[in-house]
Amino acid sequence: MTRLPSPEILISEVGPRDGLQSVKAIMPTADKLRWIDALAAAGLREIEVASFVPAQLLPQMADAAQVVQHARRHSGVRIMALVPNVRGAQAALTAGAQKLTLPVSASPAHSMANVRKTPEGMVEEVKAVLRLRDQIAPGVPVEVGLSTAFGCTLQGQVPEADVLRLAVQLAQAGVDEIGLSDTTGMGNPAQVQRLFKRMFQEIGPLTGSAHLHNTRGLGLANALAAYEAGVRKFDSSLGGLGGCPYAPGASGNVVTEDLVFMFEAMGVTTGIDLNQLMAAREPLKAGLPGEPLYGMTPAAGLPKGWRT
Amino acid sequence: MTRLPSPEILISEVGPRDGLQSVKAIMPTADKLRWIDALAAAGLREIEVASFVPAQLLPQMADAAQVVQHARRHSGVRIMALVPNVRGAQAALTAGAQKLTLPVSASPAHSMANVRKTPEGMVEEVKAVLRLRDQIAPGVPVEVGLSTAFGCTLQGQVPEADVLRLAVQLAQAGVDEIGLSDTTGMGNPAQVQRLFKRMFQEIGPLTGSAHLHNTRGLGLANALAAYEAGVRKFDSSLGGLGGCPYAPGASGNVVTEDLVFMFEAMGVTTGIDLNQLMAAREPLKAGLPGEPLYGMTPAAGLPKGWRT
Repeated sequence: MTRLPSPEILISEVGPRDGLQSVKAIMPTADKLRWIDALAAAGLREIEVASFVPAQLLPQMADAAQVVQHARRHSGVRIMALVPNVRGAQAALTAGAQKLTLPVSASPAHSMANVRKTPEGMVEEVKAVLRLRDQIAPGVPVEVGLSTAFGCTLQGQVPEADVLRLAVQLAQAGVDEIGLSDTTGMGNPAQVQRLFKRMFQEIGPLTGSAHLHNTRGLGLANALAAYEAGVRKFDSSLGGLGGCPYAPGASGNVVTEDLVFMFEAMGVTTGIDLNQLMAAREPLKAGLPGEPLYGMTPAAGLPKGWRT
Repeated sequence: MTRLPSPEILISEVGPRDGLQSVKAIMPTADKLRWIDALAAAGLREIEVASFVPAQLLPQMADAAQVVQHARRHSGVRIMALVPNVRGAQAALTAGAQKLTLPVSASPAHSMANVRKTPEGMVEEVKAVLRLRDQIAPGVPVEVGLSTAFGCTLQGQVPEADVLRLAVQLAQAGVDEIGLSDTTGMGNPAQVQRLFKRMFQEIGPLTGSAHLHNTRGLGLANALAAYEAGVRKFDSSLGGLGGCPYAPGASGNVVTEDLVFMFEAMGVTTGIDLNQLMAAREPLKAGLPGEPLYGMTPAAGLPKGWRT
């Protein structure tokens, strides 16, 4: 029996969480589950399936526990949940989440506006989550995504020193992975490459995912720059769902289909079948009728001669 | 009086030629001239303004001579024309074109379908154009863009050896610049970087423009890869006009606004003012009412804190 080599990069699908919580419509639970099943069938190995926040704040995520419990049946997929605090972490771990992610904003202005805490206050919250994890689910990794790492619509430029200081504090606190998020689509390839290289210098293999937006069309170029800096994990969203689109056509999250096409075309393996990935748009469309989806590769199709 | 340093890269705007000949509508001459004036005002230093082909084949280009004559008033801008053959070159040089560009396809299937000549037949045509140029306009550079250099919708993969052999033949014939075109949007960053590096090895500084399409969303990532390979000249089209779009949303040519935003954000100077560049969309829209335009940066706007 031949064993295929491990894929070189990990694509972490964030659509069922980041995408669904950004749109107004509420996807029925049954459609969510079909969508997640289709993503798993396409070969995704990490899916952020839900956010554990009070249902009155985000009714789109009221079924978070049910979604996590269903998704866990896919044994090759790590089921991730976003939690903003200890309370959310308790609920996510109880539901069986296999990885937690918390956002910590590098911009004090954005942090206060978003979670009413300073970045340092969020670091304390992360420490409390780590203590809880150690008590009740010691094998579950905790990731932090540093939001506004490449710029902030409120404060403008975000000093790289602020990003790196938070990364080091979080690494020392025991976080398993620390990624960088271009929350506002302000990053450029030179900056993305430079900051990720500095992350590897400061925290080495704890350097996590590149979470990039396509707000000004630079999403894939920034992903390429991050790859060149050594990043091997990328967040993206099927159909580019979510991520605060600014205007029609100006999508937020990097589109999973285009990201996978780029890497696979380059010969960088993802473990994902592009045809099955594009087929996973169907349950997404069925569950969110009328919602605009993005993606150039689905529109153009795979090129002639593409390996099957 | 301070003198600004020269911009590091040259953006060659192809919209008035490549864009306008790809759309069904015919832009009135007066609108073309206003559009070209706006592009010059934004700081573009090379504009492909027309194609010299029989008006019965391309009525959009019937005013080519008039457009070239008008555009020549912009002393800081090199006015370029596409010519498919000696006859077109004669007309373009008579009209006052300051640079000629000819397409030579690396795919025999595409070449036959497009110009009813083999690639080698087109090399002979280029030689005839060079002889004419030497006779009647010795200072005018002649560029060749090698089409389908990264793949062909008819033949599939295009061997790199075929591309490089043509490049060497054209260099030996005396062509001034030889660029590579991703005519069908099949290129990927690894391939773009590898092939341009081989171009520099084979023909050195005669290596010309990267003409990239955004068919599968990889346009800017491919431009970044070409830049990293040493390319300092890029073709693009305002609003992504033209370049054989496959489907709505799947634009053809790389969008000038997004390309300039990427490089300027990286600190790579283009000499182009982004606000004036985006303002140049107005005469384009006025002359082609209802035509879809692309571009994420115009939709999202420049980021907070962007230098003026």
